[in-house]
Amino acid sequence: MRTGISAAEALRIIQGEVRPLGAETVAISEAVGRVLCEAVVSSRLLPPADNSAMDGYALRADDARTASAARPAVLPIAFEVPAGDPGTRPLPAGAVARIFTGAPIPPGADSVVRQEDTERQGERALIRIAPKPGDHVRRAGEDVRPGECVLEPGTRLSASHVGMLTSLGRGFVAVHQRPRVAILSGGDELVEPDGDVAGGRIVSSNSWSIAALCRELGALPVYLGIAPDHPEAIERRLRAGLASDAIVSSAGVSVGDRDYARGVFEKLGCRLLFWGVEIKPGYPLAFGSFEGRGPLVFALPGNPVSAVVTFEQFVRPALRRMAGHTRWFRPQVEATLGEPLRKSPGRLHFVRVRLAREGGRIVARSTGNQSSGVLRSLCEAQGLLIFPAQARELRTGDTVTVQVLDEDFLAADGPGFE
Amino acid sequence: MRTGISAAEALRIIQGEVRPLGAETVAISEAVGRVLCEAVVSSRLLPPADNSAMDGYALRADDARTASAARPAVLPIAFEVPAGDPGTRPLPAGAVARIFTGAPIPPGADSVVRQEDTERQGERALIRIAPKPGDHVRRAGEDVRPGECVLEPGTRLSASHVGMLTSLGRGFVAVHQRPRVAILSGGDELVEPDGDVAGGRIVSSNSWSIAALCRELGALPVYLGIAPDHPEAIERRLRAGLASDAIVSSAGVSVGDRDYARGVFEKLGCRLLFWGVEIKPGYPLAFGSFEGRGPLVFALPGNPVSAVVTFEQFVRPALRRMAGHTRWFRPQVEATLGEPLRKSPGRLHFVRVRLAREGGRIVARSTGNQSSGVLRSLCEAQGLLIFPAQARELRTGDTVTVQVLDEDFLAADGPGFE
Repeated sequence: MRTGISAAEALRIIQGEVRPLGAETVAISEAVGRVLCEAVVSSRLLPPADNSAMDGYALRADDARTASAARPAVLPIAFEVPAGDPGTRPLPAGAVARIFTGAPIPPGADSVVRQEDTERQGERALIRIAPKPGDHVRRAGEDVRPGECVLEPGTRLSASHVGMLTSLGRGFVAVHQRPRVAILSGGDELVEPDGDVAGGRIVSSNSWSIAALCRELGALPVYLGIAPDHPEAIERRLRAGLASDAIVSSAGVSVGDRDYARGVFEKLGCRLLFWGVEIKPGYPLAFGSFEGRGPLVFALPGNPVSAVVTFEQFVRPALRRMAGHTRWFRPQVEATLGEPLRKSPGRLHFVRVRLAREGGRIVARSTGNQSSGVLRSLCEAQGLLIFPAQARELRTGDTVTVQVLDEDFLAADGPGFE
Repeated sequence: MRTGISAAEALRIIQGEVRPLGAETVAISEAVGRVLCEAVVSSRLLPPADNSAMDGYALRADDARTASAARPAVLPIAFEVPAGDPGTRPLPAGAVARIFTGAPIPPGADSVVRQEDTERQGERALIRIAPKPGDHVRRAGEDVRPGECVLEPGTRLSASHVGMLTSLGRGFVAVHQRPRVAILSGGDELVEPDGDVAGGRIVSSNSWSIAALCRELGALPVYLGIAPDHPEAIERRLRAGLASDAIVSSAGVSVGDRDYARGVFEKLGCRLLFWGVEIKPGYPLAFGSFEGRGPLVFALPGNPVSAVVTFEQFVRPALRRMAGHTRWFRPQVEATLGEPLRKSPGRLHFVRVRLAREGGRIVARSTGNQSSGVLRSLCEAQGLLIFPAQARELRTGDTVTVQVLDEDFLAADGPGFE
């Protein structure tokens, strides 16, 4: 087992153990946001027939070749073609058909004149412009042709993709499975949120923030509860998590001095690949694997801030990769530091910061007390500033990289038009 | 009813009718991503007692004031304090207590020396540094004090907020309700994805893309099905949607020439506020309200691209505002246009574009055929470029505003450290 490794090395070791999960077939109503696990090949022609792009009149362009606003062509209305019409009735020469958006162009017609360029007079239409063949006609197959691969495996399904799939007649689709994440906290001092906190007990809040982090990214949390500080109790709960895709433990189930977890993990067949990453917060992070025969194991530190920060850096990218995503990381911004920061060299610090747009720049400022026990500073943070391992000092005005946690910070102020 | 209005005016009219929805109390497991509807005031001290930030030894600093690596202080180990200990046993003068991270500082002790700076010899500890009072002690209440307002109404709940709420003993929390959105398509030509498309029938794909758009933003779709082209059928279905927060109709339930919907909406008491917005795609968009006594009504155009684009521009911001959000719009980027674009002046165009990072710039290029029937071009789009209403031409190299639809485009390539 390696120890005292860099953040980048820890991430490389983890990602080296991750494989995208297999396929699951879901109803189309569950498909949005999932990652496609099959190539979607069309068996249909879309649109299925030449059809009208506008409400108006279908005709042979030649029958109105001399038409103008001053001298409209006057043509009898042969029939009406609503959307959904089978579109088999031929248009007699020298006549028009009243037609609606999406309705099939009747055999014989080659163009559509928009309603705005016509006037109805009883059973006749005045055509005020000279159309060209093809005007306002949407061609059969202009969207999709049979045999075409419409969506590639690995596509993250948007609402438009869902619309496309249903257009092709697909009510079900194969996507990567959602990672099931077993969550375990340990420690005799922990209680659930509704528990009695007299005598120094505290709430097992990490379990609930980790479950929320899982839900946010589409993973399925399976909360194994609070294990008392006994190897047998921890083992019993961990066994309940062995069928999941990842185990995320924290607090007493970390791999520290007084923690029984390391022995239990090894007894169950988990090989620990590292313990201790040169970061702050979050040094006492451990990672192990069952060499492909069981879940990945992330033993997070017990401090509330350390648990969330190490999840963000190491667990989230792994879970996104399992779910089939190819983009694993939070958005980042280059920001201007609004105040000086100092530390000893050696560990990379993730500094909780607020972000403000000031005169075309993004300015980052610390949220205050950076103790890993102070969850409030993380609640107020919009991002994590990366203070590199070997740096001692960052000065006001320096350009820094910030991982953006608050997606509302990226939202635009207005619609982009006025 | 107004007609032919600008996109900005349409958005102003809509947002003028929107009110944030009322409160709903949800279990903490459902809270992430929701918007807080109450002020969360702490009744607790967090941490509840002075406690150790490290594994090590608690002591009186004065008892090791002359300690150094060369001449360590040698002090008896009086007892051990695990995390979860009630922390009531006083530390005798001249002794140390073995202590673990999170455990309460025993009465009498004022500091902690880290394990790395000590050595154990049986029942005694060698202390190799001279601590200062307060070293490695986390003070009771340094995170939260009773009576403090920890979270303000309007906060979008992150996983860290969920952790904080549980720490305070909260298993339930009041948040804004999720908008219920009744979805209706209309037209005799429409079938569900598993329906028979012989004879020119097509799938009611808009219903499914609109439902997916709702799910993506946290709204609750209620799909009312496909209404045949008869006023009574449309009325019956719309009545089933009157208890929702919004009705989103498309296709045959738009407000056009041959559409019965307008009369039905008005019969039900809906006042149409506009029909027709100077945009492409999406001109035939209608909006109405029941003057605060019923759902907002969005009658979207029937073309698949128009339906998604108008939802993005007008429905999404309204639903986000209903859910309590204060940031309503997709992220935007300033991009460099990679190819010339032309149009007639008068309507604002939303151009479907792909985005590429090239040499420090973001380059936007059209996804091709911009017909509003070609859903494929929207499937391939990462953003919507705003081609202003009065502009005729945008040239290669021009700076343009693009609404980003594909959140993966904003994801960072790497973790931000190396």
